[in-house]
Amino acid sequence: MAEERKGFSMRPIGFLRTDAETVPRHFSISNLMGRIVVDPEYLEGMRDIKIGDRIVALFVFDRSPVFVPGEHLIQRPPATGRPTGVFSICSPLRPNPIGLSVLTVTEVDENVLGVRGIDMLDGTPILDIKPHRS
Amino acid sequence: MAEERKGFSMRPIGFLRTDAETVPRHFSISNLMGRIVVDPEYLEGMRDIKIGDRIVALFVFDRSPVFVPGEHLIQRPPATGRPTGVFSICSPLRPNPIGLSVLTVTEVDENVLGVRGIDMLDGTPILDIKPHRS
Repeated sequence: MAEERKGFSMRPIGFLRTDAETVPRHFSISNLMGRIVVDPEYLEGMRDIKIGDRIVALFVFDRSPVFVPGEHLIQRPPATGRPTGVFSICSPLRPNPIGLSVLTVTEVDENVLGVRGIDMLDGTPILDIKPHRS
Repeated sequence: MAEERKGFSMRPIGFLRTDAETVPRHFSISNLMGRIVVDPEYLEGMRDIKIGDRIVALFVFDRSPVFVPGEHLIQRPPATGRPTGVFSICSPLRPNPIGLSVLTVTEVDENVLGVRGIDMLDGTPILDIKPHRS
């Protein structure tokens, strides 16, 4: 490829907090509550987030093993058990360990968002929050 | 916060190619065609992507200026002109410059995916491809 494949460094804007010790495997089947605690330096950027909003949270699968192409390009997702290419499944084990969840905002308290629908573990680094448009 | 806010390095899995010199501001209003050229090392992971699939592409806004909290937490999106918190808009200028587009696969040729609905510039680094579930 013409471009050099340099890396891009992403720094968490905050962290996910939940008391749950296990979480559903996907947000689409989750009613679990949690909190996104955003670094206060970004508080002003949260001012238009309202209760009831649907948001997209991008996060880091920070507890996944290192992705090894020879082993992980094809995986068997628990839901089907069928060997499937990694770009067609939502596995946490992927070339760039970025996860995506669509969540509902249940509370807004300064730099803390209550959210429903989490499929992330306690302490998960959050990279971005975007409005959800289906 | 308890966690140290270490950075996570993300390396492109490929690049977006398009002949278009300007692109729509959002995938939801785009019919523009392009190609995602994936690094051949990931080819096997693409084997279940089919024509007609809706995919989520995560990418880097690699031509955005550096995000400065004091200046960019509130922005005026062109669509409304109303000052709005960055986490409620799709601006390319955000704390972590990650973009998200929902695209339709129009062609699959080895490690190249034809896609419709792009809002990315030629040469945009692609970080991940996921199945789209609304």
